[in-house]
Amino acid sequence: MASSTLASIQSQSETSIWRDLAPLMRPKSVAVIGASQRPPAAGSAREPRGNRVIRNLRNFGYPGRIVAVNPKYSEVMDCPCYPDLASIPQPPDCVVLAVPNRHVPDLLESAAQSGVRAGVVFSAGFAEIGGEGKRRQAQIEALSKERDFLICGPNCYGVLNVFGKTPLFASPIPQGFLAGPVALVSQSGGLSTTIANALMLNRHVGLSHIVSCGNQAGVTVEEYFNYFIDDENTRIVAAFVEGFKQPAKLMAVAQKALVHNKPLIILKGGRSEVSQRAAATHSGSLAGAAEVIDAVFRQTGIIQVRTLNELIDTVSLFSCDTFVKRYNGGRRIGVLSGSGGECTLVSDAAMNVGLEVPELSDEVKARLPEGLPDFGNLNNPLDGTGAMYDDDKIFPRLLGALIEDKNIDIVTVNLEANDPRPKELKSGNRFSRAIADVAAGSDKPIAIFSSVVGGPVDSEILLPLRTVGVPLMEGAECAMSAVRNLADYHQFRKSKEVPSQKDSASILTHPKLPSGILPTEAAFRLLESFGIPVVPTQLTRSAEEGAAVAESIGFPVALKIESAQLSHKSDIGGVALGLSSSAEVRDTFRRLHERVTAKLPTAEIAGVVVQRMAPEGVEMIIGIKRDPLFGPIIVCGFGGVLVELLKDVAIGIPPLSRQQAHGLLAGLRGRPLLTGLRGKPSADVDALCDTIVRVSQLAVSLGDQLLALDINPLVVHANKGGVVAVDALVQID
Amino acid sequence: MASSTLASIQSQSETSIWRDLAPLMRPKSVAVIGASQRPPAAGSAREPRGNRVIRNLRNFGYPGRIVAVNPKYSEVMDCPCYPDLASIPQPPDCVVLAVPNRHVPDLLESAAQSGVRAGVVFSAGFAEIGGEGKRRQAQIEALSKERDFLICGPNCYGVLNVFGKTPLFASPIPQGFLAGPVALVSQSGGLSTTIANALMLNRHVGLSHIVSCGNQAGVTVEEYFNYFIDDENTRIVAAFVEGFKQPAKLMAVAQKALVHNKPLIILKGGRSEVSQRAAATHSGSLAGAAEVIDAVFRQTGIIQVRTLNELIDTVSLFSCDTFVKRYNGGRRIGVLSGSGGECTLVSDAAMNVGLEVPELSDEVKARLPEGLPDFGNLNNPLDGTGAMYDDDKIFPRLLGALIEDKNIDIVTVNLEANDPRPKELKSGNRFSRAIADVAAGSDKPIAIFSSVVGGPVDSEILLPLRTVGVPLMEGAECAMSAVRNLADYHQFRKSKEVPSQKDSASILTHPKLPSGILPTEAAFRLLESFGIPVVPTQLTRSAEEGAAVAESIGFPVALKIESAQLSHKSDIGGVALGLSSSAEVRDTFRRLHERVTAKLPTAEIAGVVVQRMAPEGVEMIIGIKRDPLFGPIIVCGFGGVLVELLKDVAIGIPPLSRQQAHGLLAGLRGRPLLTGLRGKPSADVDALCDTIVRVSQLAVSLGDQLLALDINPLVVHANKGGVVAVDALVQID
Repeated sequence: MASSTLASIQSQSETSIWRDLAPLMRPKSVAVIGASQRPPAAGSAREPRGNRVIRNLRNFGYPGRIVAVNPKYSEVMDCPCYPDLASIPQPPDCVVLAVPNRHVPDLLESAAQSGVRAGVVFSAGFAEIGGEGKRRQAQIEALSKERDFLICGPNCYGVLNVFGKTPLFASPIPQGFLAGPVALVSQSGGLSTTIANALMLNRHVGLSHIVSCGNQAGVTVEEYFNYFIDDENTRIVAAFVEGFKQPAKLMAVAQKALVHNKPLIILKGGRSEVSQRAAATHSGSLAGAAEVIDAVFRQTGIIQVRTLNELIDTVSLFSCDTFVKRYNGGRRIGVLSGSGGECTLVSDAAMNVGLEVPELSDEVKARLPEGLPDFGNLNNPLDGTGAMYDDDKIFPRLLGALIEDKNIDIVTVNLEANDPRPKELKSGNRFSRAIADVAAGSDKPIAIFSSVVGGPVDSEILLPLRTVGVPLMEGAECAMSAVRNLADYHQFRKSKEVPSQKDSASILTHPKLPSGILPTEAAFRLLESFGIPVVPTQLTRSAEEGAAVAESIGFPVALKIESAQLSHKSDIGGVALGLSSSAEVRDTFRRLHERVTAKLPTAEIAGVVVQRMAPEGVEMIIGIKRDPLFGPIIVCGFGGVLVELLKDVAIGIPPLSRQQAHGLLAGLRGRPLLTGLRGKPSADVDALCDTIVRVSQLAVSLGDQLLALDINPLVVHANKGGVVAVDALVQID
Repeated sequence: MASSTLASIQSQSETSIWRDLAPLMRPKSVAVIGASQRPPAAGSAREPRGNRVIRNLRNFGYPGRIVAVNPKYSEVMDCPCYPDLASIPQPPDCVVLAVPNRHVPDLLESAAQSGVRAGVVFSAGFAEIGGEGKRRQAQIEALSKERDFLICGPNCYGVLNVFGKTPLFASPIPQGFLAGPVALVSQSGGLSTTIANALMLNRHVGLSHIVSCGNQAGVTVEEYFNYFIDDENTRIVAAFVEGFKQPAKLMAVAQKALVHNKPLIILKGGRSEVSQRAAATHSGSLAGAAEVIDAVFRQTGIIQVRTLNELIDTVSLFSCDTFVKRYNGGRRIGVLSGSGGECTLVSDAAMNVGLEVPELSDEVKARLPEGLPDFGNLNNPLDGTGAMYDDDKIFPRLLGALIEDKNIDIVTVNLEANDPRPKELKSGNRFSRAIADVAAGSDKPIAIFSSVVGGPVDSEILLPLRTVGVPLMEGAECAMSAVRNLADYHQFRKSKEVPSQKDSASILTHPKLPSGILPTEAAFRLLESFGIPVVPTQLTRSAEEGAAVAESIGFPVALKIESAQLSHKSDIGGVALGLSSSAEVRDTFRRLHERVTAKLPTAEIAGVVVQRMAPEGVEMIIGIKRDPLFGPIIVCGFGGVLVELLKDVAIGIPPLSRQQAHGLLAGLRGRPLLTGLRGKPSADVDALCDTIVRVSQLAVSLGDQLLALDINPLVVHANKGGVVAVDALVQID
């Protein structure tokens, strides 16, 4: 299923695969089930979530109609209250269920019957607890599918549409919620508010939505992403995801996000075995293999972050419009700090993530010392030393120098905006005012970062700077990762501006092949039919025929016994290499036969394959494996110790373009083997990339019928010598 | 120099190598130069540092005598003021120089002449700016050495002795300074206060000292470490270091720290090329190669952290006495969280650093659900879900379960102690009270960590928990790294309890060898004299002699031309392998001669080396290189692509014990090659380790005369087959 869906994505129109989420995301009317007339005090732990939702809606100024459902009352919190959903005169767009999990399936069923089109389910106790919960979730999933009923949750906090003033949200929402361009999706309810609060209060970044989508029994993260790409109030999508459910839609929405220049910034949990156990428990997700997710993200321009703080700082940077507009795409950062120690640490951090910290330009070096007595440092990072604290003229001069320097693309200033000491002891505010003065007239992007992460962020530093386009980050490591993410995103978008060959446009579905492992000859013919070079290979049935074939394809040759029962021929002596005469071929043909029948009398021997020996070259492995979520994936690596010992493989999602094939190779640690290690000639990388492209086309064309394919080895010859597949194992469903 | 110092460390008594720092660290009287009678307002940026020091001393209750030096006044800030140092009736123990850098050398000279024994120099403009500054630093370094005068700085904030109430410190010090067991040394002044404030205010960790030591022109970080190990108020030493100056003392003090169980926790800046440039500028340090530092730290039990936040959280954990006392040394953590998403993230973080997150024990799984209706999760991490917020009985039950569980060594609780929202919206305090109740009676260590790093740490959560032995950390990644650091330290100390062979006790200094590259035979005899097995190897001068030697050592043999002018013999055809008869040896002997003389007529040929071919095995490289700071280091790796391409080498500081040799091999990615990859027999690792030990003894014995040694390859045979050196290059100074 997955593979064919992926392959056909490009021929589908954007609208056809997406549902309209309006009844869930901006309902005109809402019914709340689970609110009570005499609840414990508002804000207390025991306040029913239904009451909290009604209060949230009120406080947020929800413009639609609110009704409650409770057979005991005729009104709750000044809302009309009905005994059941069917009794509501006009069915609401959306129902909010703040009730124990056992009531959920029946209530959703009756909602769908009453004409309600969407529901939010807060309660836990579904797929994440297994057993009964799993059955409960299957019930509501079936309902969602059959009746096209939108479900947010279960096991979640719900949906908060900021500009639509619609918080169908289980958590208390403070007054003064900061509206802005960032839509946040988190499977985890707890993390949704943790991330949102950190963005708003520690970074002054506003939100357009918070969605805590829990187990995704109805609406999936991919659908929320799509909704946000379409939403005019959203410019950035940030997400914490444990498991994707709709890989084809993920690929499609990533492409759409790229077209609309709305960055998708995702923290994907569940990389390790234990966390996959935790994620399965938590939101019933099937966490994809980490390496496959990495490949998907890299290939689609999704920005992957590794920690919550990297998520927060990356969003802080991407959402700062003025900053991003001033950014030219370069990777050369300038750093100004009052601490020499931080200059050292931030340099380490920058190098670790692949940013450059260039030396100052000669012009700036020549001009900088004017009027700065005793100031000796002319380096990048630029250490203002104690002098910067003693003389107010120095800091703006140094900052100005970095802004003017043509060697520098982004200026970062180390500023303790989170100093936990009393106000009178802090010095950060002096410098933040100087930065604000300069930034207003700067055409170079400026960002600030603190040394340590943590402590109260000073709003007198944060707000004025953010207003003039200077975002705050905390910690050199996070700051440098965020800048690198921006540079990567910029580069990826730019690479897409060059129209790539439509390698995949003409891929036809391959006719069905017989099940099982293909015979050698058939496997080689299959490769050839996709334009993949193979060594001359022919099945022979007698020693005489073997010798004749060897004569015709040319010596030296290899002989390999052919039998459907033998997948590891060499282990039982069924392979002979480097034969250089007809006589040798004849002898060996007979010996292989005898040897194999002696060891495995029951093996049906179809004959002996005669193969020309390939000239030497770099030996690679190219394979197709099936990922349970994303379907066929292309795996590529170097033969020998690099694959066996170090798992040095690159992964791509088919179909792959030539450019993407080059990108795959760039990710291999063994790459210098191709470019010519220790004076050896470089290998034919272009031919190798062509082959990767063709294998990827084979994967798409065969689709679900292909269980696995291994070309091992593919010999890559030097210079323009091409490649040749020497052995291939193809397994058909 | 370095090597012989290192080797002789063990025979030196502890006291002989250390100076008494008392005049600097706890002076009975202090003279301040650079205070003025009418300074700008206290606390302002332009307040002279001298005045700030006097105020700091007063505020801190300094019990000694304070005098000022200034020819303009007879008193400053109620202190007696003298025109110069010589005029002070009784010379003070220590002088504080808050003056421009150009006055520093003369003032220190006159201080030393007047009988002052120590000085603190704040000003920048020394080695870190090069040129004139470098000369200035050389001047005061010479003074320090010749007159045994203690200097803190230059380019620093100075010394703050908390229990001694002695702040010779240039930065404002707040009231209510938190005294405690942590001594902090930072080359960087700015980072010294940043780290100290984060420890005190964000972690409630108290300090015994802050030392900002700048360029280490006089007293070095190694000397401060030693002072702190001796200091009764200090239990933990934390440091930010850019460059070490006294490698032998570092090794010695690390050993002493281990004996006294005072952990040394160090953040070493300057790992990358750019940061080494920055560090050289900043504090004039020669930053050692990162890999050598890693080896030194690993080998001596120094706890290396990689970021400021990891430093802070590691210190937070190590300094929490009750927590550490309850810790059993295990690596199995239990996690309790109200957020399923965090359960996923912390699992990833734990696996990344090598901690275990075991499943709950069967007993706990059986007992836990009692009285918890609808609570389905019985996992570790234990997700309390929304239920934990709704029902106050649940959280303590879950926490109790983790504490009781015999599968768990450390209990960690995910708690948002840094929630930036207004108080009424936070829920962390409820849970922190529950933790405090349980922790008081627990015999298992409990720590808390927040999901996000950053935001104001709530002192109502922090203080009560710290008081009952529950330390706070921020962020799953940092928390897990800190716990791993504690486990590593525990394991290292434990490994030292087993008395190791005194491999190094009997190492004698080797007689001087002739300079240059040793002839093959001499190199092999040198290896043999240290018990390193070599293939039978003999220099022969004629074809007949070659044939006779080959007969006596046994076929097959290799022939290698021997000439001092040829270091890469095989490149010009000077090597022949696999000769199996006397006739072949005779022929080849002549051919090699002819070939080499034809190509290089001027080469002096000493003869031809005859060597028995070694049987196959795993090929390794073992070498000795010279590090500019630490002297000879042992480098060990696998031959071929692993070394050439992936720089997969392990580094050790000689002498090495067998246990340490095993540790080196454990760090190699290629290690499975030794233990038997894909059904191959395992190699003779014990013999390999013996050889590493012997090479390390050779390094110590030869000392500074050895420039480099390369055994390449050392063939390691299967099973108990031993090892044999096949080729060796030895370069003597």
